[in-house]
Amino acid sequence: MTREKLRIGLFGFGCVGQGLLDVLNSSKGFKADIVKICVKDRTKKRSIPMSNFTFDKYDILNDPSINLVVELIDDAEEAFSIVTTAMKGGKNVVTANKMMIAKHFKELVEMQEEYKVSLLYEASAGASIPIIRNLEEYYDNELLYSLRGILNGTTNYILTKMYNEGIAYQEALKEAQEKGFAESDPTLDVEGWDAKYKLCIISGHAYGLFLDPGEVFHYGIKTISKFDIQYAKEKGFKIKLVPYVGKTNESTITSFVLPRFISHDKYLYNVDNEYNGVITEAAFADKQFFCGKGAGGHATGSAVLSDISANSYGYRYEYKKYQQGTVLNYTRNYKLEVYLRYQNEKDRELFGFEEVSEYFSGKFHKYVIGVVNLENLYALRDKLSDMDVFIVNTGRKF
Amino acid sequence: MTREKLRIGLFGFGCVGQGLLDVLNSSKGFKADIVKICVKDRTKKRSIPMSNFTFDKYDILNDPSINLVVELIDDAEEAFSIVTTAMKGGKNVVTANKMMIAKHFKELVEMQEEYKVSLLYEASAGASIPIIRNLEEYYDNELLYSLRGILNGTTNYILTKMYNEGIAYQEALKEAQEKGFAESDPTLDVEGWDAKYKLCIISGHAYGLFLDPGEVFHYGIKTISKFDIQYAKEKGFKIKLVPYVGKTNESTITSFVLPRFISHDKYLYNVDNEYNGVITEAAFADKQFFCGKGAGGHATGSAVLSDISANSYGYRYEYKKYQQGTVLNYTRNYKLEVYLRYQNEKDRELFGFEEVSEYFSGKFHKYVIGVVNLENLYALRDKLSDMDVFIVNTGRKF
Repeated sequence: MTREKLRIGLFGFGCVGQGLLDVLNSSKGFKADIVKICVKDRTKKRSIPMSNFTFDKYDILNDPSINLVVELIDDAEEAFSIVTTAMKGGKNVVTANKMMIAKHFKELVEMQEEYKVSLLYEASAGASIPIIRNLEEYYDNELLYSLRGILNGTTNYILTKMYNEGIAYQEALKEAQEKGFAESDPTLDVEGWDAKYKLCIISGHAYGLFLDPGEVFHYGIKTISKFDIQYAKEKGFKIKLVPYVGKTNESTITSFVLPRFISHDKYLYNVDNEYNGVITEAAFADKQFFCGKGAGGHATGSAVLSDISANSYGYRYEYKKYQQGTVLNYTRNYKLEVYLRYQNEKDRELFGFEEVSEYFSGKFHKYVIGVVNLENLYALRDKLSDMDVFIVNTGRKF
Repeated sequence: MTREKLRIGLFGFGCVGQGLLDVLNSSKGFKADIVKICVKDRTKKRSIPMSNFTFDKYDILNDPSINLVVELIDDAEEAFSIVTTAMKGGKNVVTANKMMIAKHFKELVEMQEEYKVSLLYEASAGASIPIIRNLEEYYDNELLYSLRGILNGTTNYILTKMYNEGIAYQEALKEAQEKGFAESDPTLDVEGWDAKYKLCIISGHAYGLFLDPGEVFHYGIKTISKFDIQYAKEKGFKIKLVPYVGKTNESTITSFVLPRFISHDKYLYNVDNEYNGVITEAAFADKQFFCGKGAGGHATGSAVLSDISANSYGYRYEYKKYQQGTVLNYTRNYKLEVYLRYQNEKDRELFGFEEVSEYFSGKFHKYVIGVVNLENLYALRDKLSDMDVFIVNTGRKF
C-alpha cells in the first residue's frame, strides 16, 4: 500500500473540527492538507485566519483538487446532502454524523459501491473507541452473541453526577450543560436517540443488518428520580443507559436502548462521566470490553484522524457481515426483566407484565420488577415520556 | 480488495491448533483449506483422521500449493526456523509465538520487506484482544504516552486465586496447573518472561522500537507471600503483574515488568483469572482500556483466525511508528516507587532506595516503600529470584 496525498475539504469547525485541527497539528507521523473549511456562521470568531474559510459548500464540493471531504456539522440533513454530493463527485468522505448515517445507512452503503468511494465514520459511535473498525476487521468471522455498552457521554455524565452527589436530574443536567457535556436542547441525548443511532450503526457492522431507527425501541433518562438512584444504590447498582443488540436465533437479532442496573463487579460499573464502554460477547473470543472517552473535541478528533489516515491507505469498510448475509431478521418479540417505578396502577397495567418477582408500594413511590415484552414497550413509545414512570432493564436472566 | 484463496499448512495441533480448527469449522463467513498439519508426536491420539497430519515439515514448506503457514508450536527456535523458511519461500505466515517474535523482532520485520511476505501475530500478545492491530492501524498517528496492562493469564489466575481464597502461592500454582492454566514448568509465566516478550512485541508497534528482551527488566510473582496479599487487601488493592512501556521524553521510552498495586477504582482491578487487559494513555484519545480472554484455545484461536482472514485480504503490518522513527532511544534510568517486602537489611541495601516514605518492621516481615531506580533493579536481576523479597510497583507519582 502506498499513501495517497490527501487534500481535505472540511465542513464544520465546532468542537470536533477544532479538535481535529489540534490533533492534526500535533501529529508527527502524518501530514494532511486542509485546503478549505466550510462554515455557516459568518460572524463567529475563529481561532485561525479567515482565509482558511468559505461559506459556500461548492467551493469544496466542486474543487477537483480536493479528494477527501471531512464532514463535522450538526445538521444531519444538510450533512447528508454534502456527503452524497461529495460521493457522487468521486470524493472519499469521513464523517462523525451518527444521525445521518443511521437514517440513511443502506443508501450510504450502496452509494459507496456505486461511486467507488469510501465513507468512514469511526467517530460516529463511541468516539475514540475503535469499535466499528474492530467489528469490521477483527471480528469479521466471529459468532457474535451480543453487544451492549455505554454510548452516550451526556447521559453518562448526568447519571454519574446524580449517583455521586445525590442531586436531582434537572440539577445534574444543568451542570452538564454548563460544562459543555450537554446541548442547550438535550433531547437527542437524554431521550436516548443518540445512543440509538449509534446502536444502529454498530448493528450494521456487527450483524450486517441496517436497521430503520424507527423500528428500534429507545428510552432515556428524562424521568429518572432520586428514588431510582437510591433504590439502585441500596442494591449495589449504578444505573447506566445501555443500548443492546443481540441474537435471538441464528438469523435474527433484537435491539433496544434502556437504562440498566450495573453491579459493581461489571465492567460498565466503572465507566463514568463522559466515558463510553462497549462489551462484546462472542462464541470464541468470549467476553471483551473496550473503553474510552466518548465525547470531547480531542477524543473525537483523534478518531476522525484515524479515519483520515486509513483513507490515505485506501481503506474502506467492506461490510463483511452484510456480505455474508447470515442475519436476516429483526424482532421485537423479546422478553426482558425490568424495574418499573410508577405512581398510577393504570400506568402499570399498560406494560402487560407477564411475571412479577417483586412489588413495592410506599407513600410516595411504587415499583414492580417483572417480565415484559419489548413489543409492549415499543407500542407505548409515544406515551412514555409523559408518564410518571421510570424503566430500568435489570439485565437478569429469568 | 479481493480475497485470496488460502491453502494453509498448519504447524502444531495442541490447545491453540485444536482451538483454531473449532473456530474455523464454526465460522460461517470464511472458509480456508487446511491442507496439512505438521506435528511432532507420532503416538499422540488426534481428534481428526491421521491422513490430515505429517511429521515432515517439508511436506508443508516445499508444497507450492500452500500459500499460508500457520505456526502454533511451543519451541521458539524450531518455530523461527519454520517461519523464516516459509517466508523465504514466499509464503505468508501467521504465528502466535511471542518468544520467537520478541527474540527476532527486527530480523522478522526486515524479512517481510525483503521477501515481500506478510507475518501476522495478533494472538501473540493479549490473545483475543486486538491490541497489535489497533496500535498499528488505529493509533498510527496518536501520541502515545504509555501502555500497561495484564498480559499473562497464568499469573493473573494464580493472583486471583490467592486474593479470593487466601491460599499460598504454591497451592494456587498447583491448582492452575491442574486446570490447565499453567504449564508443568511454569517458569516462563511466573517469572515474567512471557509478559516481557509480549511487552516487547507491543512496544514495537506502539513506539517503533524493537527492544532486545535482554535489556528489559522483568520480575514475576514466584516469591509473593500471603503477607503481601494481606498487605494489599488492607490497603484496598489487588496485586497484578503489570508490564509497562512509556515515554520518558519525546524520543525515549522505558519499559519493565513488575507486580503492581491496583486500587478498586481502576480498570485492571476487575480483570481477574485468565483475562487480560490493556490500558493506553494518549494525548488525544486519552485513556483507553481493552479487555478480553488472554488464554485458552478458542480465544487464541479466534485471534489466529482474524489474522488468517486479514491475510486473505492482503493485510500486512506496516510498522508505521518504526517508519516514522520518532522514538529512537531506550532508557532504564527511570525512577519508580516500590513496595519491598524483605527479611534481611543487607538485601534492602542492595536496592539503593533514594527516598523512603514508609517503613514497617514486624516479627516475621518487614517492608519499605520508597523510590528506586530501574537501573538498580536491572543490576540485581540475576540475584532477585534467590532473595527472600517481593517487589511491587506502587504506581504512585512521587
